[in-house]
Amino acid sequence: MKEIANLMAYRPGVKVVDATLRDGGLVNDFYFQDDFVKALYLTNLRAGVDYMEFGYKADKEMFDVNKFGKWKFCDDEDIRAVVGDNATDLKISVMADVGRCNYKQDILLRKDSPIDLIRVATYLNTIPAAVDMIEDAANKGYEVSCNIMAISNAQEGDLRAALEILGQTPVNVFYIVDSYGAMYPEQIARLTDVYMEFAAKYNKKVGIHAHNNQQLAFANTIEAVGDGVDWLDATYSSMGRGAGNCAMELLLGFLKNPKYNVYPAIQFIDTHMNKLKEEGVVWGYDLQYLMTGLLNQHPRTAIQFTKEGRKDYAEFYRQVVAQD
Amino acid sequence: MKEIANLMAYRPGVKVVDATLRDGGLVNDFYFQDDFVKALYLTNLRAGVDYMEFGYKADKEMFDVNKFGKWKFCDDEDIRAVVGDNATDLKISVMADVGRCNYKQDILLRKDSPIDLIRVATYLNTIPAAVDMIEDAANKGYEVSCNIMAISNAQEGDLRAALEILGQTPVNVFYIVDSYGAMYPEQIARLTDVYMEFAAKYNKKVGIHAHNNQQLAFANTIEAVGDGVDWLDATYSSMGRGAGNCAMELLLGFLKNPKYNVYPAIQFIDTHMNKLKEEGVVWGYDLQYLMTGLLNQHPRTAIQFTKEGRKDYAEFYRQVVAQD
Repeated sequence: MKEIANLMAYRPGVKVVDATLRDGGLVNDFYFQDDFVKALYLTNLRAGVDYMEFGYKADKEMFDVNKFGKWKFCDDEDIRAVVGDNATDLKISVMADVGRCNYKQDILLRKDSPIDLIRVATYLNTIPAAVDMIEDAANKGYEVSCNIMAISNAQEGDLRAALEILGQTPVNVFYIVDSYGAMYPEQIARLTDVYMEFAAKYNKKVGIHAHNNQQLAFANTIEAVGDGVDWLDATYSSMGRGAGNCAMELLLGFLKNPKYNVYPAIQFIDTHMNKLKEEGVVWGYDLQYLMTGLLNQHPRTAIQFTKEGRKDYAEFYRQVVAQD
Repeated sequence: MKEIANLMAYRPGVKVVDATLRDGGLVNDFYFQDDFVKALYLTNLRAGVDYMEFGYKADKEMFDVNKFGKWKFCDDEDIRAVVGDNATDLKISVMADVGRCNYKQDILLRKDSPIDLIRVATYLNTIPAAVDMIEDAANKGYEVSCNIMAISNAQEGDLRAALEILGQTPVNVFYIVDSYGAMYPEQIARLTDVYMEFAAKYNKKVGIHAHNNQQLAFANTIEAVGDGVDWLDATYSSMGRGAGNCAMELLLGFLKNPKYNVYPAIQFIDTHMNKLKEEGVVWGYDLQYLMTGLLNQHPRTAIQFTKEGRKDYAEFYRQVVAQD
């Protein structure tokens, strides 16, 4: 059991990362209205959020710019149109996927960019490519995190080898990413112990990005913060792929640091997030996501089920249980 | 951190209690169709659920039988119409509220009844009345639990005094009831320690009934079972007052005892629960319940907000924060 002080007091090192545009963009192909993005930025400022992630730095030779909104590519000038010179305490991040980003060209020097943090997303089997991206970003002057995806499928030995390699890079933060929403808090606690061991050895921080397939995104996030994880991803109304993420409004309500305020989050949801839902953008916990989470599978079959407007949950369960 | 064995193995003493008709009845005034109730009973049998709660034993002199469905009153003959002589492993329970039940008259001898378990629901300030009900039920031959509601508002000293009194009664199970959905898993762990101390002293079991105001009903339930709690309340699709309860489909997916099966739960939801929602019965996590949970308030204002079809979440937040 954790100490009561952890709940009543707060750890100043905690950082809240708003990933609404980035993970939420996965459900509307990054087509956010400009006034939405501006309001989100202002909300994050008022709510005391530490980082706002604008989207991906996706390779335009790989993805058609006519088939996605601009936040899939996050050109620096598009960010500047929202944040100006961003003379605030809110830092700006983008995500760069291993194998889907022309990082040497598209990520500029930090001194010329509104971006503060590059988040390198990788699977365990592409760590050397991630290392190259981390070094590139660090050399350009950025803060860097490494987000290791699909961690519920990792062998602990492989994870230890990866953290050993990453520990020797200039990366600032190791991220636990439960892409499948498959993990229970007890498992998060054990996994956090492994991450914390290497974070202590190499003087890094640890972050968590959770998914809500089993209604545990918030629970897993607060489990992790109780175990020493400092960087916490959240999205307004849980907007994100499939079952979505840890809800910003739950997290801000929980955190005790008086710099965080839940009321701006509620206002933003009231005005903007519910409108998105009414317009037909679909995300969030539902039975099909429970099933893929429970079975520790990628949610793509469940996302397809949702897209097709299917409601035959029992038939879907038979399909996902049967597939090898 | 809990032991890995707790997650991979299982504790045979765990009991799952389906409270769908009882807590769910609070959102549709107990008007369930007969075929729904029959299908629920058959589902619980197939899913390996241990207890099925049919509803309340409410006092007919206090509540108008024309204004509620029959499961608010749970006449023995109505239960028999569903379960026959119930020659199964599934036991039957009803809830009896302190002050709202004519228990001496309405609860018959167990040998003449299909009911196995009487769950006495009380607040901390009505323990002597609860004790009288517990003794009445035990004397009639029933298993008995005592469900202490609104526990997030309890002083630990008062709780200890209550458990000391209840320990000396024939009650079988002490229940933790987070009526306001206000508690975090870390707090559940600490509260469970107090309950377990008295359970050990008096040879009782401990149960948990959680609410989902902060999307923690399932997380709090699995926290509690990891801490030694054996009796776990759940409802299909989380159906229950306000934000609802721990979802049966999440709990059955989590529990490792092979007697439990999640597939019948999915089938039942597919066929019956989604139909209820389509018919306009409303429950489940929403922003107004987050707010009352966060503020440790009774959800009645949030329920009223829902009933009125209001969507002005920010205005509601101002109201609940402002009220003394």
